[in-house]
Amino acid sequence: MTTPLRLGIAGLGTVGTGVVKIVRQKANLLADRAGRPIAISAVSARTRDKDRGVNISAYAWEDDPVALATRDDVDVFVELMGGSDGPAKAATEAALAAGKDVVTANKAMLAHHGQALAEAAESAGAVLRFEAAVAGGIPVVKALTEGLAGNDITRVMGVMNGTCNYILTRMQSAGLPYAEVFEEANQLGYLEADPTLDVGGIDAGHKLSLLAATAFGCQVDFASVELEGIERITIADIRHAADMGYRIKLLGVAQMTGRGLEQRMSPCLVPKNSPLGQLEGGTNMVVLEGDQVEQIVLRGPGAGEGPTASAVMGDVIDIARNCRVCTFGVPAGTLTRATPAKTATPAPYYLRMALEDKPGALAKVATVLGNAGVSIDRMRQYRHADSTAPVLIVTHKTTRDALDEALGAMSRLDVMAGTPVALRIESV
Amino acid sequence: MTTPLRLGIAGLGTVGTGVVKIVRQKANLLADRAGRPIAISAVSARTRDKDRGVNISAYAWEDDPVALATRDDVDVFVELMGGSDGPAKAATEAALAAGKDVVTANKAMLAHHGQALAEAAESAGAVLRFEAAVAGGIPVVKALTEGLAGNDITRVMGVMNGTCNYILTRMQSAGLPYAEVFEEANQLGYLEADPTLDVGGIDAGHKLSLLAATAFGCQVDFASVELEGIERITIADIRHAADMGYRIKLLGVAQMTGRGLEQRMSPCLVPKNSPLGQLEGGTNMVVLEGDQVEQIVLRGPGAGEGPTASAVMGDVIDIARNCRVCTFGVPAGTLTRATPAKTATPAPYYLRMALEDKPGALAKVATVLGNAGVSIDRMRQYRHADSTAPVLIVTHKTTRDALDEALGAMSRLDVMAGTPVALRIESV
Repeated sequence: MTTPLRLGIAGLGTVGTGVVKIVRQKANLLADRAGRPIAISAVSARTRDKDRGVNISAYAWEDDPVALATRDDVDVFVELMGGSDGPAKAATEAALAAGKDVVTANKAMLAHHGQALAEAAESAGAVLRFEAAVAGGIPVVKALTEGLAGNDITRVMGVMNGTCNYILTRMQSAGLPYAEVFEEANQLGYLEADPTLDVGGIDAGHKLSLLAATAFGCQVDFASVELEGIERITIADIRHAADMGYRIKLLGVAQMTGRGLEQRMSPCLVPKNSPLGQLEGGTNMVVLEGDQVEQIVLRGPGAGEGPTASAVMGDVIDIARNCRVCTFGVPAGTLTRATPAKTATPAPYYLRMALEDKPGALAKVATVLGNAGVSIDRMRQYRHADSTAPVLIVTHKTTRDALDEALGAMSRLDVMAGTPVALRIESV
Repeated sequence: MTTPLRLGIAGLGTVGTGVVKIVRQKANLLADRAGRPIAISAVSARTRDKDRGVNISAYAWEDDPVALATRDDVDVFVELMGGSDGPAKAATEAALAAGKDVVTANKAMLAHHGQALAEAAESAGAVLRFEAAVAGGIPVVKALTEGLAGNDITRVMGVMNGTCNYILTRMQSAGLPYAEVFEEANQLGYLEADPTLDVGGIDAGHKLSLLAATAFGCQVDFASVELEGIERITIADIRHAADMGYRIKLLGVAQMTGRGLEQRMSPCLVPKNSPLGQLEGGTNMVVLEGDQVEQIVLRGPGAGEGPTASAVMGDVIDIARNCRVCTFGVPAGTLTRATPAKTATPAPYYLRMALEDKPGALAKVATVLGNAGVSIDRMRQYRHADSTAPVLIVTHKTTRDALDEALGAMSRLDVMAGTPVALRIESV
């Protein structure tokens, strides 16, 4: 077992550079832990000559990641380029076809092609692992596929986009509106080149679809993730939610129900004293629930050089140790095609609306809710100076269908100023 | 890979029964995940005829766990009897000598004999794993040995005795004294037969010594764990600590320093808004810090049938998948003998004392602290009706030596009523 495990690394951005540093600086530690040396044979990136703060001259250079992926002196192809298709996918496919193991941090690629790639890996006798693709440094894929493998997983939840959590907690703590904090995050370099990936929930949705497949033994189905971003969250909602004892989080929830697989990535209210409610800034949190283990909460950095490189190295060391686990925890051929649930599990909802200051306005709203079968848990009308009264309602548990019926009827009332805001309250 | 992995289970208490249930009820799921069926060949317990809520008649029975451990039809010996020596150790040694893999939940046995048993396992080509021995259902050993294997671990902390955390949080929430809550916990069956194992910090100290060995690649050294129980924590300290923004936890801390390996299991103050500070009731939490991953926090149930059996099954499934990781993450022969640090890393301390109500009393205390080089961060004297004044002091960061010097000098002052309480404030 003293043959080195030889890596070919494609992509030398933040994460790739971090991986190179760890391999160079911790040779003895890694060899002790992995049972064999870990070495880098070759690297590939867009630009060869660039100061990355680490010396790569000892490694062979390839301009073409496909050529890198299929080199004879590469045992594991480490894909850190990103992008759901294009060179990342081509090189990953080439590596697997050549029987190379693959470690990737690419959530978009796996969200779109996870099933095909897992099948390709297995037919070639290769492994394809992706710890770094979900929740950065948190070893959550390992926890699901290995640590909790004796459980039927019942629900997976998480705050998995640090940028969104930064924006929401900063709005709360500084009392600033969305647009201003968004611009701040942009200046700080927290946002993807296409910010919709972050604030539209797409990036986090990719991650959720990977966790759902792993948790429930089904094929990745990103297209069925119900996606809603944080763009419409106002400082008023953040304040009112806080008033009622809640925090607003971009929360991913996946659960297998009698009605099919639910996958939602949307702004939700969670109790402010819960671990999710207390999560501040860019940190990520994943909650795993199983029939045996009850609830496990994992918290850690969701991005950054060290944490993401740590996750990549975890996968690499597994391969060096000959721990070869299927991509989604079970053979790709046994992954089922889960039916997407048409409606979400009933939950309480938070409603915020502005009512015209007319006698009987509140009664009309209450009647409309009652007619739809939605009952009220708590209601607050705030003192106001202008002609519309801000009203908050927390409902008892209701179906989304009943709520939508009520919201439809409300929009036809003559006392409603603007459109009500409705946010799910997730029990955590 | 369709040969079943055959278990021999010794000990059919809560955890053993839980493992039997999982193997019986999840045969298909386990076979999909493990790549092969998992079966039980034989079992052993103190009493054969007892209603355990699960049918064990299909399994061979052994009165003697050593005989069970060495049966030809047993691949993995699952040791769930407990006790640091006696039958548990004899059967584990016999299993390893016979080349069987071993999965155990026995923290006491490993805290005392971990090094010898890890060596025995390796010389026999067997694996010995213990996820269930530390923090119940939380996959923390896996996170340390595998997920974070690319890190130099810098510190490990944790609340790892649910009973102590129950007692401390119940004292806080109900405003009840230690003795009363201790009795309550006893009635609820939360305490070990020898309660010192819980409230004296021994059980949690065992766990800490296993995490320290795993984190820092050193031989288990339970004898060097600085142990202090929660027996002397008063409701006054809990209230005053809360007043100053802290919670009191029985906190384990292990870190490798220039002065050697620090292992402490003692009541500490932590900020009440930190994840550790917010941990209520019997839940466990482990904080792992690494040079790459920064900080990972893991939270979950620390005991109980389902959670502990979940951890046992995680180890069993690893073995079924042929993931064979060294007991403490690196070969036993490379584990170093760490020098125990003689003194703890400097920290701020919380001091509570009662002063005679005489002019200049506070000045004398302040002088004594100053002379020892201990500076004061915050001080509060409370309004009082009797002749002694309650005084709280939070110091700046200081060495324990300087603090002890100050405490010694204080005890010789003529203004001190009783002995001051000193508790470390851990930065988390």
